Amino acid sequence: MSTGDDPRTVSQAGEAAVLEVLSGAVAPLSADPVGNGDDAAVLGPASATVVTTDMLVEGTHFRLDLTTWRDLGRRAVAQNVSDVLAMGADCSRVLVGLAVPGETTMTQIAELAAGVHEEADRSGAVVVGGDLTGAENVVVSVTAIGTLPGGARPVRIDGARPDEVIALTGAPGRSAAGLALLLGGHPDGPLQDVHRVPATPIGSGRQARLAGATSLTDVSDGLLRDLAGIARASGVAADLTGAALPVDQLLFEAAELLGAADPAARVAKWQLDGGEDHGLLATFPVGTDLPPGFTVIGRTRAGDPGQVRVDGVPTEPGGWDSARGGR
Amino acid sequence: MSTGDDPRTVSQAGEAAVLEVLSGAVAPLSADPVGNGDDAAVLGPASATVVTTDMLVEGTHFRLDLTTWRDLGRRAVAQNVSDVLAMGADCSRVLVGLAVPGETTMTQIAELAAGVHEEADRSGAVVVGGDLTGAENVVVSVTAIGTLPGGARPVRIDGARPDEVIALTGAPGRSAAGLALLLGGHPDGPLQDVHRVPATPIGSGRQARLAGATSLTDVSDGLLRDLAGIARASGVAADLTGAALPVDQLLFEAAELLGAADPAARVAKWQLDGGEDHGLLATFPVGTDLPPGFTVIGRTRAGDPGQVRVDGVPTEPGGWDSARGGR
Repeated sequence: MSTGDDPRTVSQAGEAAVLEVLSGAVAPLSADPVGNGDDAAVLGPASATVVTTDMLVEGTHFRLDLTTWRDLGRRAVAQNVSDVLAMGADCSRVLVGLAVPGETTMTQIAELAAGVHEEADRSGAVVVGGDLTGAENVVVSVTAIGTLPGGARPVRIDGARPDEVIALTGAPGRSAAGLALLLGGHPDGPLQDVHRVPATPIGSGRQARLAGATSLTDVSDGLLRDLAGIARASGVAADLTGAALPVDQLLFEAAELLGAADPAARVAKWQLDGGEDHGLLATFPVGTDLPPGFTVIGRTRAGDPGQVRVDGVPTEPGGWDSARGGR
Repeated sequence: MSTGDDPRTVSQAGEAAVLEVLSGAVAPLSADPVGNGDDAAVLGPASATVVTTDMLVEGTHFRLDLTTWRDLGRRAVAQNVSDVLAMGADCSRVLVGLAVPGETTMTQIAELAAGVHEEADRSGAVVVGGDLTGAENVVVSVTAIGTLPGGARPVRIDGARPDEVIALTGAPGRSAAGLALLLGGHPDGPLQDVHRVPATPIGSGRQARLAGATSLTDVSDGLLRDLAGIARASGVAADLTGAALPVDQLLFEAAELLGAADPAARVAKWQLDGGEDHGLLATFPVGTDLPPGFTVIGRTRAGDPGQVRVDGVPTEPGGWDSARGGR
């Protein structure tokens, strides 16, 4: 991006220059009647439109001394894309609202924009709109939009039935372990990278839908908590098999590096309660040929709606509640 | 809303309770496959989808000692609806992202939600999604979505041609005058109300499109600045006729109350440079039967793209640039 070394601050450069950097120099998808630069974007015809919004707030979700602007842009997009995937759709467009102090430099904006576009590209999406405003603390608010092809039904959170398999993509707990390492003074490593930018499983939402997933969500608040969300919405109970969770050597190494008295217990807590991994959690009828990347970790059953047992023991989810949490 | 007197704080009540209040107890539009409560909302088929996002930041756009939570909710929705109207569409859905300190009470959330729903109702829109997060300062980030009926073309900002009429809805300058009164220690009055919640001209965007508007935007940064935006994007110049602006007795009274040395000059500055009124500004071919509420205030002409003259005198727009501004 040509503005990568722009020494001006946001105050000096003005809104139009910032939005130009944020939206990139690229043309909008030719199918869209109006892309950037007008009051609103106009998207072309679609059979159904999936839309979600989520924000990242400095001091709550990130610290500028622990993340780069590029990673911040990537993470803001990734966590929204994840919510679109979790409806069984692919993400097609992204809007970015940005609140920053006036002394933020255009170089920092360009880095953020590079991250936004990198992650949007990865998802097959384009940036079609933005908003800029002043603020004491940085806020990045993203709206992500996806489309479902003609006749496709979104995969909801409330469609699980008893006696189905529960399956998950990715390696749960890595983001939480990465944060623990960062706060423990270990700035670099693969887990820290996962915390900075979750690895959203592009394409997996659509594949889960096509394979016949009965329910689908992304793990943002923690595996137990999000599984309880599916179970409660669907009116079923859920049984997790602890041994079915990935044996994740990186998590054990992190627990030991942090001097955990009981490393296995620390790893289990990260895997069951850690949020922001943004893997996809789904239920499928027994016998379904699961899409690539999904691993069976348990079964649904008739029972108290929302109750989750791990190896037969009822649990109290300890995951993240964004209103209650104090991080 | 039944939670109007809920004494709990946001921290005590938790995210699900807050989002329930924000989304209201109402069912989603039955045409939408998925409304609230899932990872993302899913909207039904549309010929074209209009989408925009804008945020309000405490300390930058509002002070909690000068606004109510209800008005804050209304204003956040109104300014986004305005951007949808400015494409020639009607607003159909709203998503609200909210960042608040944990000690915010559920009563305050309910007031904000009441304002969000009041303004959404006014616009014919429903709230289909939300996000809640913790923050030191309050941020309200709204995404507004509208649809264009089959075959309808959005009214862009860049379609004005030379020798067309320039027309405006509403009374420009009232929001700026209202802010001046508020900061001058006059908390109550009709201008202050306009500053707290702009009066978006529901239906006027669609009517302008149907009447054949060649360009359309909403006045958010100031009349001169937004007119220059149309002119620059369209490659034309613009002539405003000062005498065509409304004679607004309320503005003169405000200027006098504030002890302006030259009340007429103060009024002119509010009308030409004041932002956030969110009236609609359009160009139409000469001879167009203008929709209700639109008043002719000038003409476009061939000339330096983006140049605006008032009564023949070239101007330097002094409107609001959200990156440069220091309010």
